[in-house]
Amino acid sequence: MSDSELRGSASRLHEQLEEIAALLHRHEAGAPVEVVLQQRLQQLHPADMAFILESLPLDERLAIWQRVSPDRDGDILLEVSDAVRESLIADMDQREIMAAVEPLDADELADLVEDLPSEVLPELMASLGAQQRERVQSALSWKDDQLGALMDFEMVTIREDISLETVLRYLRRFDELPTQTDKLFVVNHDNLLTGVLPLHWLLVNPPERMVSAVMAPDVNTFHPADDAYDVAQAFERYDLVTAPVVDERGYLIGRIAVDAMVDVIREESDSEVLSRGGLREEEDIFASVWKSVQNRWAWLAINLMTAFIASRVIGLFEGSIRQLVALAALMPIVAGIGGNSGNQTTTMIVRALALKQITAESARRLWRKELVVALFNGVVWGGVIGCVAWWLYDNWALGLVMMVAMTLNLLLAALCGVGIPVLMTRLGRDPALGSSVLITAMTDSGGFLIFLGLATVFLI
Amino acid sequence: MSDSELRGSASRLHEQLEEIAALLHRHEAGAPVEVVLQQRLQQLHPADMAFILESLPLDERLAIWQRVSPDRDGDILLEVSDAVRESLIADMDQREIMAAVEPLDADELADLVEDLPSEVLPELMASLGAQQRERVQSALSWKDDQLGALMDFEMVTIREDISLETVLRYLRRFDELPTQTDKLFVVNHDNLLTGVLPLHWLLVNPPERMVSAVMAPDVNTFHPADDAYDVAQAFERYDLVTAPVVDERGYLIGRIAVDAMVDVIREESDSEVLSRGGLREEEDIFASVWKSVQNRWAWLAINLMTAFIASRVIGLFEGSIRQLVALAALMPIVAGIGGNSGNQTTTMIVRALALKQITAESARRLWRKELVVALFNGVVWGGVIGCVAWWLYDNWALGLVMMVAMTLNLLLAALCGVGIPVLMTRLGRDPALGSSVLITAMTDSGGFLIFLGLATVFLI
Repeated sequence: MSDSELRGSASRLHEQLEEIAALLHRHEAGAPVEVVLQQRLQQLHPADMAFILESLPLDERLAIWQRVSPDRDGDILLEVSDAVRESLIADMDQREIMAAVEPLDADELADLVEDLPSEVLPELMASLGAQQRERVQSALSWKDDQLGALMDFEMVTIREDISLETVLRYLRRFDELPTQTDKLFVVNHDNLLTGVLPLHWLLVNPPERMVSAVMAPDVNTFHPADDAYDVAQAFERYDLVTAPVVDERGYLIGRIAVDAMVDVIREESDSEVLSRGGLREEEDIFASVWKSVQNRWAWLAINLMTAFIASRVIGLFEGSIRQLVALAALMPIVAGIGGNSGNQTTTMIVRALALKQITAESARRLWRKELVVALFNGVVWGGVIGCVAWWLYDNWALGLVMMVAMTLNLLLAALCGVGIPVLMTRLGRDPALGSSVLITAMTDSGGFLIFLGLATVFLI
Repeated sequence: MSDSELRGSASRLHEQLEEIAALLHRHEAGAPVEVVLQQRLQQLHPADMAFILESLPLDERLAIWQRVSPDRDGDILLEVSDAVRESLIADMDQREIMAAVEPLDADELADLVEDLPSEVLPELMASLGAQQRERVQSALSWKDDQLGALMDFEMVTIREDISLETVLRYLRRFDELPTQTDKLFVVNHDNLLTGVLPLHWLLVNPPERMVSAVMAPDVNTFHPADDAYDVAQAFERYDLVTAPVVDERGYLIGRIAVDAMVDVIREESDSEVLSRGGLREEEDIFASVWKSVQNRWAWLAINLMTAFIASRVIGLFEGSIRQLVALAALMPIVAGIGGNSGNQTTTMIVRALALKQITAESARRLWRKELVVALFNGVVWGGVIGCVAWWLYDNWALGLVMMVAMTLNLLLAALCGVGIPVLMTRLGRDPALGSSVLITAMTDSGGFLIFLGLATVFLI
């Protein structure tokens, strides 16, 4: 990383964005503005360039992209979101793409390969050395959520039968160490990992001591098949900066660093927020109308289906509604509160499930607790709204039915709120995806059925 | 950190949890089981102990807590969630609390102070040295979301007029370096920060070179008043491990490390998920019924209010519903799809606002795009459901009203979906909190009003 790069906080970044957008709009003003713009762009860190590109509509984004000097293209492509990366690559010809990706490391290349046009791939693979090619292929052989797809291959390895003095002299032969290096990996002559030497210990111990006397033999090691989010939680829990990745026999094959793990944590939370909001994937805010429609289509279709089912449930009771039209006005309250309460329960359970905090024993306690909370809320809130209904429609029996229906629907919401995510986890599915839709479907149709059913039996 | 501590992935942790719960249930079996249990607990990393305590119901949690050796209490208290911390501290007497917190650093103490019973505070403050006390007070003077509340004071500072050789000799006088140290801070004799010396550069450069020749003079420095989430984004963007914190005159006053920033990123995403799910704060899954009720109360009350308003809107059209009861069955579809679509738009806008990616120019484009998407979805999905309504009720005019109402409600959803978060941001409020409730309220009441209103004008 170069020190000439301008850096700043989010609000600094926003100012830069406004400034660059303004410069771009004045580009007809000619050469001097163009020079200033080029200068400003050249000074930006690749991550900041990515931010600017993501924040601009397509035409302005490409106008900026064409002004970026080609040697920085690769680093910037690595930083932008998938949707924006696609739009940038679509604007590049084969020669530009090759020039952008050739300087990258194997793990970085593997990140980009999926988004490159397939015509480029043979030429790209042919241009790599044997070791690079093997590494890219290895990284591609793992799934996106496995550590193997995220690890890098830049690391410093040492032997345990040398002195710290020798290690210090060895390190001075490097121009620079791999980013975020906080420990050296100790291997035997077969490349079997035998321990790690934190840079701290290298620095505070007398130089004549041997590596074997100072190193930590027992460490956090991970495997390429490990779930990336599991590993990210370990990084968070034990405050790790880097960790070795070994194969099943214990041979050192790569390294994983905290920057990749921070991205995993971010993406995991993002996907939860997105899926709760009903978006299939991260959406470029300037995506075309058609792309946006596709991204949101699935969720709307599912919702239309569940809304239609709820509508048919109401249809069963049209006779009752015709006789007592107050039912039509009151029924959305019963359904709505059930949905809200169920989603509160699910939010809590999904988090506890993700952290693997729920045991068989505690699941039983949770049911019990949620049912008691539902009963309490049903009686209190149902009572309040029941009294209001009584007062509005001057019909105490209607108020009573309202209260009982709300209580029953809240109990249903509690049952589904715990049951649906637990069941989804048992079936090996991600409970964060879809639990909310299912619960709302249950409490909507269930709420209408309970309220209108009770009303038909007792009031009509 | 000690290497004898057992560590593991999330699933390993879950096994440990089940095992410890099982040991606890067998405690009547007597001494041998007790010894095994104590041993297992002693081997656990404080973060893993925190996980176990969070995953157990209150009685079992306290049974484990009483078996933890007192010298580890402080570290574990730092790791547990707020709700669980409260339950643990409530179980300790004043002497135990003092013993637990006395070995902690100033920044760690500041984290705990708010949760300690007020009787302990005078004794605790009196037990601190002058510098410690000043640091605790300084940390407490900042708000929770400001960097000053999160920075620590453990750092290694050096002068720029010495050789790297001297730095290496100086470091050997330490027993250990502060955790996650990746750079040394270079200060002049007034403690004014003049640069940083990454450990990497210390290691790869010849020892006879001077610090001033090697150090990076221009660095990412932060201020204690900075917003913690802004700084966390900078850590993420520039892959930082530690960074200096300076006051407004540039004097070095503390340090911020990536582990604290990972926690900030995690908490920010968590609070978004929680608030969307309608929970006020993180809920201990074994919280008492009463605490759960309090935590969820506000959201339910707001929802009851908005549902009540929507219900009164329906009440205005009771005459129409009595004449054409199909309206009652169809109206929840119009309202529901509007709510969903509005929430999709808001999810995307809230994210873009949080990243400060929206400029005045792009806001206009966004409105336009969202309105076109809404128009498209309204015509397509409204058309589908309109045809279904026509077929079900054999009434083409009803189908047409359904389609027009859905389109209008989707347009309303798009307007609110962009407008509400933008407006909340202008008013200086967090758009992630409450946008979803407001939009659902608008699309529910609005949907009923549009659909029933159109139906009353054209069908009745």
